[in-house]
Amino acid sequence: MEDQAPVFEFDQDTQLTPQGEGEWSTVISDRWNITTIPNGGFVFALILGAVTQTSAHPDPLSATAHFLGKTEPGPARIVVQVLKEGRSLSTVEFGLFQQERLLVKGLVTLGNLSHQLGPTRLEQQRPDLGPPSKLITRRPNLRLFPMSGQFDYQIPADKAEGILGEPTGQAQISAKLRFADGREPDLNSLALFADALPPAVFQLGYRGWTPTIELTIHFRAHPVPGWIWSEISTSFLEKGLLEEDGRLWDEVGQLVALSRQLAIIPSDPQHRMI
Amino acid sequence: MEDQAPVFEFDQDTQLTPQGEGEWSTVISDRWNITTIPNGGFVFALILGAVTQTSAHPDPLSATAHFLGKTEPGPARIVVQVLKEGRSLSTVEFGLFQQERLLVKGLVTLGNLSHQLGPTRLEQQRPDLGPPSKLITRRPNLRLFPMSGQFDYQIPADKAEGILGEPTGQAQISAKLRFADGREPDLNSLALFADALPPAVFQLGYRGWTPTIELTIHFRAHPVPGWIWSEISTSFLEKGLLEEDGRLWDEVGQLVALSRQLAIIPSDPQHRMI
Repeated sequence: MEDQAPVFEFDQDTQLTPQGEGEWSTVISDRWNITTIPNGGFVFALILGAVTQTSAHPDPLSATAHFLGKTEPGPARIVVQVLKEGRSLSTVEFGLFQQERLLVKGLVTLGNLSHQLGPTRLEQQRPDLGPPSKLITRRPNLRLFPMSGQFDYQIPADKAEGILGEPTGQAQISAKLRFADGREPDLNSLALFADALPPAVFQLGYRGWTPTIELTIHFRAHPVPGWIWSEISTSFLEKGLLEEDGRLWDEVGQLVALSRQLAIIPSDPQHRMI
Repeated sequence: MEDQAPVFEFDQDTQLTPQGEGEWSTVISDRWNITTIPNGGFVFALILGAVTQTSAHPDPLSATAHFLGKTEPGPARIVVQVLKEGRSLSTVEFGLFQQERLLVKGLVTLGNLSHQLGPTRLEQQRPDLGPPSKLITRRPNLRLFPMSGQFDYQIPADKAEGILGEPTGQAQISAKLRFADGREPDLNSLALFADALPPAVFQLGYRGWTPTIELTIHFRAHPVPGWIWSEISTSFLEKGLLEEDGRLWDEVGQLVALSRQLAIIPSDPQHRMI
């Protein structure tokens, strides 16, 4: 008896076929593309499915991916190897291959967030997007961001031009987002949410490709069903190298993840500041 | 003819003996201990020496280390493998072993910072520590931090109690530091500088062990000779999990590195908030 196909597109597109110990085949969908290239956060979320199936501990705590080459929609192979299995933490490494080329390589330390105990002190709260009546639903440009069709985005009306049109002059974007088809967020999908807004430096007037060299996500809590609040910012653009920091919050105000990527504005002048 | 022993302690303690292709032996010194355990940033800097000798590109841009177990002073083996060598970037993986146990595992993408071109826009400047006459030279507790004897620390007099005595109540520390023996900073040693202050959460009244799960450093520029300004902070302590972010600047005001670690306050009550 065959399994029924998943209802939601994210689940359909993150299916993995076991190929033996720590190895899976999958097909990278084109529904999560940025221009013609699969979104790095989507590919990371896809990989985390294999990682969490392999590990004795259920929840990624810190996950790093280095992007060695451009992935493309189509068949891929994911290999996961356990490096250490401890009492409270496990560490694994992974690789994603297409046509035998290693394109994404990473490390993940996993634990169990539901059992996590200790003090809490948050210096920043979930960003206030203003009254719901002033939030407008717009999508980033579907031609540049085909994957933006997968999300509902709510952004403050007075900032809406920034994400889509005129730059605000400050490399920062805040928005609420959720899967357009009603799929609820979970821990692995936060890797996708962390990379689902246009680059914060678009607010400075850049409109080119800003490839991610490395993306690290700290997972802090299982999100409750509902919207994810995302705030991304870049403080240090230096000779084309930039960090993009993200803070993700859920419907009840929990900080659910922190992300940081090192990205680069290619020195080719056609990609430079407009 | 034998090489002369290096003049400076950091160079003496980061010497590597080649053991064949991509493999080195070394001895972890106890001069960089935190209590009885070698500082993670020191071990990372030691490893980066092997990484940069292996890579076709000279400068780490993003380096991540996962700490799988406690290292200890004594013999260690470092293994480095090139995963990709591209035109402008290389990616390598490394492992540090003691007694055949993998204790530190990581990934590094390298490039050439001297050739880096592109726009610059910094949202934050080097922290202002106030007038030099109001800076005092103190070291964190040498019993807890034997390695603090390796550095000169200058901190604002009105914050001095925070780093050493009474908590300020805000998880943030700013200081100037340099090697006590006159060794100038370079790119690899920034991994050590990034981990050379007491944990920022000590300012909240914690005084226990906060082991690092994962440490990622973005290297942005070669520091000029002189002091390193370091500012560290924790914004999100959540059920014992915390990020510590660091910003490192050099004598001429360049941002030279960003660091972020995921650390944990153990749930064992004897390590909890005082």
